[in-house]
Amino acid sequence: MMIVMTPGASEAEIEAVRAKLETTGVHVAVMPGELTTAIGAIGDPEGVRQLSLEGMAGVDRVVPISRPYKLASSELSHHEPSVFDIGGRTVGGGSTFALIAGPCTVETREQTLGVARAVKAAGASMLRGGAFKPRTSPFAFSGLGVEGLKILAEAREETGLPVVTELLNGQHADAIAEYADVVQIGARNMQNYALLEVAGKLGKPVLLKRGLSSSLDELLMAADYILKEGTEEVMLCERGIRTFETATRFTLDLGAVPWLKLHTHLPVIVDPSHAAGDRRLVQPMSAAAAAVGADGIIVEVHEDPEAALCDGPQALWASDFPQYVADVSAHAKLLGRVLA
Amino acid sequence: MMIVMTPGASEAEIEAVRAKLETTGVHVAVMPGELTTAIGAIGDPEGVRQLSLEGMAGVDRVVPISRPYKLASSELSHHEPSVFDIGGRTVGGGSTFALIAGPCTVETREQTLGVARAVKAAGASMLRGGAFKPRTSPFAFSGLGVEGLKILAEAREETGLPVVTELLNGQHADAIAEYADVVQIGARNMQNYALLEVAGKLGKPVLLKRGLSSSLDELLMAADYILKEGTEEVMLCERGIRTFETATRFTLDLGAVPWLKLHTHLPVIVDPSHAAGDRRLVQPMSAAAAAVGADGIIVEVHEDPEAALCDGPQALWASDFPQYVADVSAHAKLLGRVLA
Amino acid sequence: MMIVMTPGASEAEIEAVRAKLETTGVHVAVMPGELTTAIGAIGDPEGVRQLSLEGMAGVDRVVPISRPYKLASSELSHHEPSVFDIGGRTVGGGSTFALIAGPCTVETREQTLGVARAVKAAGASMLRGGAFKPRTSPFAFSGLGVEGLKILAEAREETGLPVVTELLNGQHADAIAEYADVVQIGARNMQNYALLEVAGKLGKPVLLKRGLSSSLDELLMAADYILKEGTEEVMLCERGIRTFETATRFTLDLGAVPWLKLHTHLPVIVDPSHAAGDRRLVQPMSAAAAAVGADGIIVEVHEDPEAALCDGPQALWASDFPQYVADVSAHAKLLGRVLA
Amino acid sequence: MMIVMTPGASEAEIEAVRAKLETTGVHVAVMPGELTTAIGAIGDPEGVRQLSLEGMAGVDRVVPISRPYKLASSELSHHEPSVFDIGGRTVGGGSTFALIAGPCTVETREQTLGVARAVKAAGASMLRGGAFKPRTSPFAFSGLGVEGLKILAEAREETGLPVVTELLNGQHADAIAEYADVVQIGARNMQNYALLEVAGKLGKPVLLKRGLSSSLDELLMAADYILKEGTEEVMLCERGIRTFETATRFTLDLGAVPWLKLHTHLPVIVDPSHAAGDRRLVQPMSAAAAAVGADGIIVEVHEDPEAALCDGPQALWASDFPQYVADVSAHAKLLGRVLA
Repeated sequence: MMIVMTPGASEAEIEAVRAKLETTGVHVAVMPGELTTAIGAIGDPEGVRQLSLEGMAGVDRVVPISRPYKLASSELSHHEPSVFDIGGRTVGGGSTFALIAGPCTVETREQTLGVARAVKAAGASMLRGGAFKPRTSPFAFSGLGVEGLKILAEAREETGLPVVTELLNGQHADAIAEYADVVQIGARNMQNYALLEVAGKLGKPVLLKRGLSSSLDELLMAADYILKEGTEEVMLCERGIRTFETATRFTLDLGAVPWLKLHTHLPVIVDPSHAAGDRRLVQPMSAAAAAVGADGIIVEVHEDPEAALCDGPQALWASDFPQYVADVSAHAKLLGRVLA
Repeated sequence: MMIVMTPGASEAEIEAVRAKLETTGVHVAVMPGELTTAIGAIGDPEGVRQLSLEGMAGVDRVVPISRPYKLASSELSHHEPSVFDIGGRTVGGGSTFALIAGPCTVETREQTLGVARAVKAAGASMLRGGAFKPRTSPFAFSGLGVEGLKILAEAREETGLPVVTELLNGQHADAIAEYADVVQIGARNMQNYALLEVAGKLGKPVLLKRGLSSSLDELLMAADYILKEGTEEVMLCERGIRTFETATRFTLDLGAVPWLKLHTHLPVIVDPSHAAGDRRLVQPMSAAAAAVGADGIIVEVHEDPEAALCDGPQALWASDFPQYVADVSAHAKLLGRVLA
Repeated sequence: MMIVMTPGASEAEIEAVRAKLETTGVHVAVMPGELTTAIGAIGDPEGVRQLSLEGMAGVDRVVPISRPYKLASSELSHHEPSVFDIGGRTVGGGSTFALIAGPCTVETREQTLGVARAVKAAGASMLRGGAFKPRTSPFAFSGLGVEGLKILAEAREETGLPVVTELLNGQHADAIAEYADVVQIGARNMQNYALLEVAGKLGKPVLLKRGLSSSLDELLMAADYILKEGTEEVMLCERGIRTFETATRFTLDLGAVPWLKLHTHLPVIVDPSHAAGDRRLVQPMSAAAAAVGADGIIVEVHEDPEAALCDGPQALWASDFPQYVADVSAHAKLLGRVLA
Repeated sequence: MMIVMTPGASEAEIEAVRAKLETTGVHVAVMPGELTTAIGAIGDPEGVRQLSLEGMAGVDRVVPISRPYKLASSELSHHEPSVFDIGGRTVGGGSTFALIAGPCTVETREQTLGVARAVKAAGASMLRGGAFKPRTSPFAFSGLGVEGLKILAEAREETGLPVVTELLNGQHADAIAEYADVVQIGARNMQNYALLEVAGKLGKPVLLKRGLSSSLDELLMAADYILKEGTEEVMLCERGIRTFETATRFTLDLGAVPWLKLHTHLPVIVDPSHAAGDRRLVQPMSAAAAAVGADGIIVEVHEDPEAALCDGPQALWASDFPQYVADVSAHAKLLGRVLA
């Protein structure tokens, strides 16, 4: 930590800060400047944070030096990326590209099996599909529940595709653990810490979506919540942030991908569908995600998007999906990646 | 709903939209213009939303006409504000001002009782305090749990102040219901729909904080989740939104207060502490909240903020609190409000 | 400045940074920590900034310690607020409240004189009105130009109210200098540095509006551009920032007012009209501006807003203005301020 | 336009709106609904906008149907993209990719000629370089001025690369017109309408950067300001927007590129350097820009970024530039584009 004093801070105020810092056992260096004095505190940042120095007389600001996340940090892994095996698919590590595709929501057995076959045939790595759906309005369709999970499991059995589905509520944890291969945490729950801990205890890989106004530091701290439960297999997912721009539904932050590659060992997946909100934008944004170095994509596909119960406008037509896979994987191949 | 076609939309595309709309039984009006055709769909907006018209050929945009929330809408109450009684304090309705004060976190019995006595003596309406704390980092102090709830109950017994405390996790629901007078839902859980439904079933008033990137429409839809469980006593809380500006911790959106007064019957409380992040800003922002027409304030107070375990820099000194109450209530009084 | 090295930075990289810093003559303190080394550089921050240390091998981040503005800083004035006299009205200093009112745009002589008389009668301190209007679309009405300035001057002659009007283009500088008492710089030009320098040379007080996505640091640096030309009379104006929330036209950042009071000696004015975009919100937001400690308000008033050529929906009815003045000035009075 | 009445609007209020609309000659359709009445106004949107209907009794909202820009609209060109020739390089149209590279600022003759030769050798299409620099602080280096323009012209003479440079101030227009091939308008001036009109009159292609908090609609309206002066050759430039995220300097909005392709005929260029603020992110973000369908890139290159006077941390090393060109152009080639 670096404590910056106000220009008018007195010697006594500076001493009081130094004394308080020293109670935590950190190394303290006072650096008097022309206008302001700065005080460096090297050591336990959590301990210093709890001192609440910002409110002390004469303190202008407290500037963190160390990053606030730990287990997700690339330091921990000595800059070696994490690599997982999920049902025979390799995720992370730079030589594969995971293409997770499927409907927004499990609506019926026929619809789900139809899409699963289509995406499998086109080369998808895993099947996505929601059985429990978070809805902004309490009056909207909220999914088939356990029935939907069973349909997904049937689709896995037929196609061999591992299943990615959202855990929305701790009460569904057992059911999700029974049927899912990857547990998804949605953007609105990224800081639902109770749920993160439940997810971390299921013994399954977790796909953690970035909250719609969460900083990358907060995303990595949320990953820490899951990792500390013992799970090592956490995938981060950039899915668009909320900004002033409303032309697209959210602003896909692709610069986050190479930034995350510098700061964490965890794989990074991109969800272009929710950010675009319009299927005409999904293919270009997916190609960009591959080009920027993502480890994979999670995308919505439907055999008849115009009849979809949820988010139809952003779903790709299953009939267009083979061309989409060809386009996107060509960009991934330029980075030395093959479809997982 | 209003469906706006692209300028080049064909007659057949327009007809397809009309036909699809008519399946839902809404009234359809086609309005051909010079450049674009617009199609009005009057009736069941939820039904129209599920048609996913945005993805149909020739459709440019779908513009909602009606507001997306229902139970929270001021229409429902014929523009009469809701008024609640909470432990003898009147909230809502325009003639009172609720001053909810206390520590960020229950740290010890002495600290909590000390603050409770101080805020009671200065005229506070209710006591706030966290027993379960959401923390961005999993390695930070997270509260005393049920032990903290018992301390809050003891403070209520001694001071008579109703207790406001946060429900963080559905598993704590029974304990919260046993000890709290008002159940707080934190900003990070505003769209944790499972938790909203749990809160709505406890038979207690709920204080719902706005998510840090939630629109006011979304706040009112979140209130709908609670209201539909049967609770009628929901207070909304503006606590600052996340913007590009980092001079203050969050940007307190006081314009939201009169906007909410136009659109909902629910009372509106302001939390100046979290938005400011600096106690020197809390008094002016509280006075502004009173002047802008809020129904109350929830503010952090500590006997020794420099020793606080959580958010000390934004906590008011208990010794300054009487003057704070005098200042803020003078502004409320100009609007005809007395302390609840 | 504080240079934070990456955890894996080598001794040689740390030495290279130290050597580069020492070329600028600053005092350098190397602080080795458990994980990362931090290097403090105390002295000329502009010189250090130009070293571009962020791009050097082994450097993680460069954290500024000193504030980036100078002339606008409250340090410069030893925390004494600036006080100006504008045509007999005192602005700044805490004992007055400036009420600047008038139409968005000068439309006709009759309209402008009518509003000027009305706001004067109700107690306004100055008259606002646009002769040159910035318009987002090039096809919208853009003001009467010099003709409008003459009408404003006539209104001043009749009412005695000093005139505040916008300088939009350096080519209009002479005309503005001839007719205006206060030169306004609009939000979209806050970082039009050429225009700031022109404004600073006119020898008139300047009202500088915050850009719609400008940080408070940037606002104070923009003030520095004007102040360095020799003008001492700069008023800052908070007028709402652009955020994700669209319920109000912009998000009025009232927390900025007390923050600015801590960091600058310049007076702070609030524009509630543009942020609200809806006259029903203007009175509460104005009362809040007075309560939060602003030195004044600039507000739009029209005798018949429904016939206004520009921004009618946010203009107050002139017939409602006396009540508005009574309400707002009552809040200002609680802070010991009288109308300027 | 669509006028949405409040649920309680009276018949008289609805009639008043209809009557006011009819004064402008638009076609009016009243659509009574269960809760609210909506009124469609088909015809001259500018005329309707000036009626200020939002402020009328009983009106809840006015929703625009048509897009607010005209000349930049893809409708105007019947969805044919504009194609320009700039000094023998083709920009726009989908078969070329413009690689505009060079230093942030012209510092010296040697530095500029050195970079120009290096980027030419690596395959760049045009040379960028700033002679007049906008600086947030008035105390920072602001460019060599006309001397810098002459150096750029000399670099063009030697390398044959057309020169792109920023017009910062109307007073420099003649000098810019004499030396530049493409006139750049910086992000901070995107809504400096006076400058846009000056730029539109120079008879040169214009590169218009998106303002850092400008919506895409506003970007296209700004383009209209230039286009209406007679210039047909306007290139739009996405350069990152300001959001809450500070991990990268700005948030590069690559979803804007395919959105713009749907809505305008103008070419779209991406500036990855300013958004990244860190050279390690520039190559991946450039590859993504090529993959998402941009018509080109404008990127900062320096022979010794650690000695650069401006924005060194984000400049690519000239020695790395050939590999960069190979990587980025491979992605462009997948879309059928060759370097311009």
